[in-house]
Amino acid sequence: MIARYFAPLAEKAEGAANLTDDVATLRVPPGQELVVTTDALVAGVHFFEDDLPDLIARKALRVNLSDLAAKGATPVGYLLALSLPRDWREDWVAVFARGLAQDQDIFSVSLLGGDTTSTPGPLTLAITALGTVPEGRAVRRSGAKPGDAVFVTGTIGDAGGGLAIRQGEGAALAPSHRDGLGARYLLPEPRVAFGPSLLGFAHASLDVSDGLVADLGHIADASGVRIAIDAASIPLSAALRALWGSEATLRAVTSGDDYEIALTAPAAHEPALAAAAKVAGVALTRIGRVEKGEGVVFLDVQGEDIPLTHAGFVHF
Amino acid sequence: MIARYFAPLAEKAEGAANLTDDVATLRVPPGQELVVTTDALVAGVHFFEDDLPDLIARKALRVNLSDLAAKGATPVGYLLALSLPRDWREDWVAVFARGLAQDQDIFSVSLLGGDTTSTPGPLTLAITALGTVPEGRAVRRSGAKPGDAVFVTGTIGDAGGGLAIRQGEGAALAPSHRDGLGARYLLPEPRVAFGPSLLGFAHASLDVSDGLVADLGHIADASGVRIAIDAASIPLSAALRALWGSEATLRAVTSGDDYEIALTAPAAHEPALAAAAKVAGVALTRIGRVEKGEGVVFLDVQGEDIPLTHAGFVHF
Repeated sequence: MIARYFAPLAEKAEGAANLTDDVATLRVPPGQELVVTTDALVAGVHFFEDDLPDLIARKALRVNLSDLAAKGATPVGYLLALSLPRDWREDWVAVFARGLAQDQDIFSVSLLGGDTTSTPGPLTLAITALGTVPEGRAVRRSGAKPGDAVFVTGTIGDAGGGLAIRQGEGAALAPSHRDGLGARYLLPEPRVAFGPSLLGFAHASLDVSDGLVADLGHIADASGVRIAIDAASIPLSAALRALWGSEATLRAVTSGDDYEIALTAPAAHEPALAAAAKVAGVALTRIGRVEKGEGVVFLDVQGEDIPLTHAGFVHF
Repeated sequence: MIARYFAPLAEKAEGAANLTDDVATLRVPPGQELVVTTDALVAGVHFFEDDLPDLIARKALRVNLSDLAAKGATPVGYLLALSLPRDWREDWVAVFARGLAQDQDIFSVSLLGGDTTSTPGPLTLAITALGTVPEGRAVRRSGAKPGDAVFVTGTIGDAGGGLAIRQGEGAALAPSHRDGLGARYLLPEPRVAFGPSLLGFAHASLDVSDGLVADLGHIADASGVRIAIDAASIPLSAALRALWGSEATLRAVTSGDDYEIALTAPAAHEPALAAAAKVAGVALTRIGRVEKGEGVVFLDVQGEDIPLTHAGFVHF
C-alpha cells in the first residue's frame, strides 16, 4: 500500500528516500527556520465517516497548511500518521492518496514520511506540516499592539453555514448557495499564497478555526490587549446572508472552520497588505482595532456592545 | 488541560511559545539538517488499554527516538497528536504527561507542539520526532556494501519474550527474569546515546522493530545485497534463554519491538564502534556479514541455512 499509493507522493522530496527509510531529512536554507504544526482528525468528530476520501485527505492537509500560512511560513512538506479501520478498502486509500496528490500540486508540498496502522476505532489521521520562515520572523499571536488595525481575509462563517446545511438548515436555499457553502465546509482554502505577505507587516495573526471572535480572543489574551470589532464590517458571502438573514453576522463570527487569516497590523500597512491580498487572489477586510485592555468586544454601528452570549452562540 | 499538563513539557523549547500558538519554530544549526519521523500507536493494537499511562507515553516517544538514533541523529523535540476516548480522566492525563517529563529529562528533548482531540474509538497517539544530523550524513538503509560486517546493539528478543509472558508463557520463570523481559516490552531503550557514533562508521543502519531478520531484510533490499547472519552469535539475555530454551535464537530474531540498532560497517571500524558503544553503556555484537546477492540467510555453526519459515515464526 505504501509503495503503491504513498511513495509516489514523496518522489519529489529528496530527503524522503521514497518512503523506504525510517526517517526523512530536510535542509532548512540559511537564514530560515523551521515552522512545524500538527493536527489530528477523527471520523465522526472532525468529518463525516462517509465524506469522500479525497476531501478528507485534502481537508486534513489544508488545516495544517493554514496554520503555517497564518504565521507567514512557506510550506515545504508533511508527514501523515494514518490509522485505518479494519474494514479499509484499497479503493478508499487510492482516492485518499489522489486527494493528497491534487493538493500537493496546488500548494507545492510533498509527503515526507508517515506511518500506517490499523485501528479497531474510527479512521484517524494526524498530519504534521513543516514549513520555513526567515529566522525569528514567524508572526505570533502575541504581538498585537494598541493602535493596530484588525483585518481578516475572505468571508467569515461560510464553513459554519455549510455545516448547518448538512445538519438540515437552509432547505429553501438556492442550489448554488447550498453548494458554495457546502464546499467551504468540506474544502477550506488555506491562505498559503497570502501568508508570507504577513512578514514585515503583521504584528499578530492566526487562522480562524474556532470562530472569529474566539480566535481574536486568543490574540487579545496572548498580546495583553483588547480587540474591538465593528459588526457591520464583517465580510459575509451572499450565500451566507441568504441562509442566515439577520442572524448571519452573529452566527458567522461564532462558527468555526473558516481557515481565513485574522491579523493585526499598523493601519499604515493597509495598502501594502491589500495589494498583497489582491495578488494572492483573496479579499482583505478591515474589521476593527486593537486597544488597551483585554478581551474582545463586538460593536454595533452606534458603538454599543453586542452581547455574544445569546442562546445558540458559543459562550466566551 | 494543555496549560496544566502539556505546556510545562514545552517550557524549555523557546520556539514552542508555551504551546500558546498554532506552531512551533525550530532553528537548525548551520551545517546540520533536520531528521523527522512519525509513528502512531493505537490502544489494543500497539499497547494494552490498561497499560500504565506513563509507560504508554514513554513507549510512544521512545519508538520515535529510536528511529532518529538509528540514523545517527540527535533528537531535539517532538509533537504529540493525542486522541482521547470520551471517558478520559484527568488523573490518566496527569500520569501520561509525567511519563513524558521523565523521558524528556533522560533524552534531552522537549515537547514542541501538539493537538488534543476526543475520539469515539480507542486511545490513539501519533508522535512526530525531530532531530538533527550533519548535512547529508544520515545513515540510511541503503548503504550496506559487500564485505561489511553486521552488528547489533544490546540483546535481541527480550521484548518478544516480555509479550509472550503477558500472553501466558513462562509461568515457571524466575520473577526477576519475568520482570526483566516484561520491562523490555513495556519500555524499550532507544539507543540515543550510541546513535551519533554511527556517523562516519556505519554504511547502513535501522532500528529493529519488525524483528531482526525482517529488518536486516529491509537493509538487504534497500542496499541490493545479501546479509548472512551467524545464528550462534545472536546476543540473547539469560532471561530469554530461560524462557525459550533451545528455541530462543529462532524466536528472538523473528520477534519485534527490540528497538536495538542493527548496522553494517567495514570490519576495520569494529574497534571504534565497540568503544563508542561502551561509552554509551550498551553492548555491541558482531553477528554476520554483507555479501553480494539478495535477502537474508541465517546460518548454523556448520554454515548451513536454517529455514525461518518454521511454524510460529513470521514468514518472509
